[in-house]
Amino acid sequence: MLRRKCTERQEAMTKILIDCDPGHDDAVAILYAARHLDLIGITTVFGNQSLDHTTRNALSLCRLAGLATPVAMGAARPLVAPPIHGGDIHGKSGIDGADLPQPDRPPESISAVEFILRAARQHRGELVLCAVGPYTNIATALRVEPKLTEWVKAITVMGGTTQIGNTTSVAEFNVYSDPEAADIVFRSGVPLWMVGLNVTRRVGVGEAEIAALRAGGRVARTIGDLMAFFRTSLMEVHGITTASLHDPCALVPFIRPEMIEYRHLPVEIALAEGPTRGMTVCDQRTLTGRKLSVIRNSKAPNCHVALDVRGPELVGHIVEAMHGFA
Amino acid sequence: MLRRKCTERQEAMTKILIDCDPGHDDAVAILYAARHLDLIGITTVFGNQSLDHTTRNALSLCRLAGLATPVAMGAARPLVAPPIHGGDIHGKSGIDGADLPQPDRPPESISAVEFILRAARQHRGELVLCAVGPYTNIATALRVEPKLTEWVKAITVMGGTTQIGNTTSVAEFNVYSDPEAADIVFRSGVPLWMVGLNVTRRVGVGEAEIAALRAGGRVARTIGDLMAFFRTSLMEVHGITTASLHDPCALVPFIRPEMIEYRHLPVEIALAEGPTRGMTVCDQRTLTGRKLSVIRNSKAPNCHVALDVRGPELVGHIVEAMHGFA
Amino acid sequence: MLRRKCTERQEAMTKILIDCDPGHDDAVAILYAARHLDLIGITTVFGNQSLDHTTRNALSLCRLAGLATPVAMGAARPLVAPPIHGGDIHGKSGIDGADLPQPDRPPESISAVEFILRAARQHRGELVLCAVGPYTNIATALRVEPKLTEWVKAITVMGGTTQIGNTTSVAEFNVYSDPEAADIVFRSGVPLWMVGLNVTRRVGVGEAEIAALRAGGRVARTIGDLMAFFRTSLMEVHGITTASLHDPCALVPFIRPEMIEYRHLPVEIALAEGPTRGMTVCDQRTLTGRKLSVIRNSKAPNCHVALDVRGPELVGHIVEAMHGFA
Amino acid sequence: MLRRKCTERQEAMTKILIDCDPGHDDAVAILYAARHLDLIGITTVFGNQSLDHTTRNALSLCRLAGLATPVAMGAARPLVAPPIHGGDIHGKSGIDGADLPQPDRPPESISAVEFILRAARQHRGELVLCAVGPYTNIATALRVEPKLTEWVKAITVMGGTTQIGNTTSVAEFNVYSDPEAADIVFRSGVPLWMVGLNVTRRVGVGEAEIAALRAGGRVARTIGDLMAFFRTSLMEVHGITTASLHDPCALVPFIRPEMIEYRHLPVEIALAEGPTRGMTVCDQRTLTGRKLSVIRNSKAPNCHVALDVRGPELVGHIVEAMHGFA
Repeated sequence: MLRRKCTERQEAMTKILIDCDPGHDDAVAILYAARHLDLIGITTVFGNQSLDHTTRNALSLCRLAGLATPVAMGAARPLVAPPIHGGDIHGKSGIDGADLPQPDRPPESISAVEFILRAARQHRGELVLCAVGPYTNIATALRVEPKLTEWVKAITVMGGTTQIGNTTSVAEFNVYSDPEAADIVFRSGVPLWMVGLNVTRRVGVGEAEIAALRAGGRVARTIGDLMAFFRTSLMEVHGITTASLHDPCALVPFIRPEMIEYRHLPVEIALAEGPTRGMTVCDQRTLTGRKLSVIRNSKAPNCHVALDVRGPELVGHIVEAMHGFA
Repeated sequence: MLRRKCTERQEAMTKILIDCDPGHDDAVAILYAARHLDLIGITTVFGNQSLDHTTRNALSLCRLAGLATPVAMGAARPLVAPPIHGGDIHGKSGIDGADLPQPDRPPESISAVEFILRAARQHRGELVLCAVGPYTNIATALRVEPKLTEWVKAITVMGGTTQIGNTTSVAEFNVYSDPEAADIVFRSGVPLWMVGLNVTRRVGVGEAEIAALRAGGRVARTIGDLMAFFRTSLMEVHGITTASLHDPCALVPFIRPEMIEYRHLPVEIALAEGPTRGMTVCDQRTLTGRKLSVIRNSKAPNCHVALDVRGPELVGHIVEAMHGFA
Repeated sequence: MLRRKCTERQEAMTKILIDCDPGHDDAVAILYAARHLDLIGITTVFGNQSLDHTTRNALSLCRLAGLATPVAMGAARPLVAPPIHGGDIHGKSGIDGADLPQPDRPPESISAVEFILRAARQHRGELVLCAVGPYTNIATALRVEPKLTEWVKAITVMGGTTQIGNTTSVAEFNVYSDPEAADIVFRSGVPLWMVGLNVTRRVGVGEAEIAALRAGGRVARTIGDLMAFFRTSLMEVHGITTASLHDPCALVPFIRPEMIEYRHLPVEIALAEGPTRGMTVCDQRTLTGRKLSVIRNSKAPNCHVALDVRGPELVGHIVEAMHGFA
Repeated sequence: MLRRKCTERQEAMTKILIDCDPGHDDAVAILYAARHLDLIGITTVFGNQSLDHTTRNALSLCRLAGLATPVAMGAARPLVAPPIHGGDIHGKSGIDGADLPQPDRPPESISAVEFILRAARQHRGELVLCAVGPYTNIATALRVEPKLTEWVKAITVMGGTTQIGNTTSVAEFNVYSDPEAADIVFRSGVPLWMVGLNVTRRVGVGEAEIAALRAGGRVARTIGDLMAFFRTSLMEVHGITTASLHDPCALVPFIRPEMIEYRHLPVEIALAEGPTRGMTVCDQRTLTGRKLSVIRNSKAPNCHVALDVRGPELVGHIVEAMHGFA
């Protein structure tokens, strides 16, 4: 169970809904949000595994950490793109590496999008949507209810990259999985934060942190086991030596904003078939100090893009939160 | 008010939900459905005019005809495509040509998709979704709730064409307005009926029918005025001499199936930018009698496509229904 | 050898260059041109088979018919598209079904495009280019020498369709093989004639004609054998009962213009990936008599498109030409 | 006139043909090649200005520097893309800033592609094609004569980028001008060197070099004036403070290979419409030391991509070559 006093603190905390596909780093993101923010709901989406797996994993995690947060089940596949999933990284269950408890409740009776809309109506102007899987649910919700753009305070996502990709040479998995959904989110006009691989790969848990987690309490121990599995996967598939805490990074602007540097840039999603499908095309030409208005074929900035991070410090902060659970 | 006895008859009748953008021919479709089917709801979408207009028009029509059918408001724009609307055909209000009464109630408090899902859950296996505007609401509902494909009995749409288009040389307005939504519907696996311009342009109201409608009761008279306006628009924009009853045709398979001949064909939606975007690519190569399996680059049939119609007879049947209102 | 007196007649005849991929119907086109026009060259392209085969076949046909026409070798693959060929229809050699003589000379020492440019420079304002394979050579020549558009009198092609396709549901083989080349030709501004499957499939050689050819002289006999093979192929692959004389149709506007009805229409080539790639998008909306200027999203006419044909009469005329050889 | 003894040295020197669109930095490339390589021809293409201008400029430069190198005129527009040109950078003439002499001869009577083919036939296995404008001529030549891939020794291009673009956020002008041509070149299989903006922007002439050039001989003086104009343009349009010697960089692998570091990488050209059209998609995932075979969705390396440069040293070397002319 989460050790914190709730009532007063929550009033000051950002109300957040996490849309996710757990997923190892999703698990960390859920706990990190539960520790530092007012986590009002979890919605699930296909991605790291099939929807059935990711929903089950979300419920198991809630049981593990003693969270009563509602879990609603969302999209089983991308809007338009053919379905893919990330089983090569996250294993058969979507969260291999530790024995999570069986879920002790079913998901909500309404769908993720219905849940998002209800939450947004209830907390108008206050709710932040945090998407750390493919953005299908968020995109769909934006089309189902045009007023959602006014109701939510911000959208913050893990996904994309300003440098190399992890699914193709230039595309990251979450965006590549449903580029049309990403396009809807990026054009929505809602204040938008994007943290991509260029930053999240610098927020990696190594051997020392894994050992420390495994020496901690029940929850920390489980997270330690998950990170050990994840680190091995990432090493085998991407040649990376630390377990990247991709997903929790998307919460940082609402917890420790000073730890990631964001810049407001024009970002478009490449939709057409070919070698760039799913790319987050960030126009970085203003970073040299030139005005956007004098730059050829430029668009208005629509997204706060993460460009730099205090990596080790942030890893420490996230890992610490894991120790905050019994 | 609709002159019919309800209780017993409704049990035998198909339960239908009309997703529409009234619109002149949408108005006729609503009344035609109310007359012959169990119309359990009306959901609205941008299209012939902006969402505000089409929703208002749906409510006004209900008042005009004394229908208590719930009206829920849906998508204000296409999924991915840039927004367009059909004001050149349907006028400023989306239904110019007659003075409709002011709406006497607001739309439902939940969105079109939420309404569709609630209806589909309630009438599992029985509900037919009839889309006669852009298919944004239906497509979104299919992604919001993956089980919707099992819950609905069929989807029937007005849209597309096997011959020339009305928006580009090969694309029809409803499909062109939101091709990605059409793609979702056509790939959904739900039993699907499509009646396109190749048939609906042969179901046209001429001078005589308009005169007869204008000589009828209050509702028929209003429809007559609307058809007169619509006929003039179509003549000016498309050079057509009768007012095509596009939208009511989509209901025919559940009212008078013998009047339109459908064939089960492979249909794909052209999504890529260029001269065919929004085209309903119907593979008609099997119509010559060859087996699909020996046809180059062929796909499995996924849609009942309307190819022929008893035009004048159907016009008579629809017009007659208009006279059934007080 | 061709039985005709040359000098005076040639002066009155259209100077033609055939760009082809023989190919059964290409063979007929070459002989038909040699009989009725001033055939100044043959250039070859991949298509019905690989470039090596089609070039060899062109040389063999020249030997068979006693033609001294120069043969130059062109493109081995499409401009941008991945290579395909039509071996399933035309057999391993590209012209299976008869024993053609070995070539008695090599192709020209310069490439097809270099030959086309030399010919066009020499016969400025007089030369008609007739393309009956993929249009790669013609398209390339148009880019190599921008003045070619002024030098040639017309381009006439076999390819495309206004109805169903033979390679996909909407695309014909020649255009589908190199859509970018077709796009270049269709945008070139050169007076353009296109005869597609909608017409050429109605110009088919049946059992009777094949028997008559086989009862003729050496050349006619060989053509009869080729047609017999071709007819069987077309029956197996496309379910068609006559051997379509696709390619000779492209010559008709310069030999018997009254036999095919052409209309000047806007035609675009669908280039984007997806179900319409390689489609000749003919805007037929003007055929109902409306002015182009009042048609939505219309373009200027750029191509004379074949819409009707006196089929049996034309078959007779082409077959008769085959009997004109010794 | 060029001060060097020719006969013996040329035998050892790489035979090079420059395909260009002069253009300020093209002018430097021509002189740099004439000084250090066996420049056997110059072919022209649209690009920095229209074909008429770039051809005239090439001839004027030859007169200025006393070069008898043949100049052949090539493509006036891209293969498939709509035409653009770079007049905003290079001025009305395409080479504003100095008074070049009038041409004292016309271009060759054959086209650029015919010239390239003739040269490649003559110098089989020895010729390097250096493209520093849009690659239309080279691409067309590759399709006109399939054997060209065997005849040429290498292709080296200026174009593309591994970082930000100069025409869109990710695309460089030469590739963006004719992406389909670039695609043909990059898929040709010919040994390929690409130096892009990521390197060429680091090879910039500043105030001191311009002053030194202006204090030199007649040719150096003219180049100094051109560079002064070019520097001002680049500052205004791209906010860059030195005049980038983009084009001469493409010659460096054959003159001073140690000055630019190239790595063999998979490169694809983004062709589809949208924000990445014209992008050189370089897969840099191997640069971290991983094997290509274990990288997701990877292709075989097809291009030596310039990644680093000894900038000031190279500027000095190129500028020095300009002083080598009388």
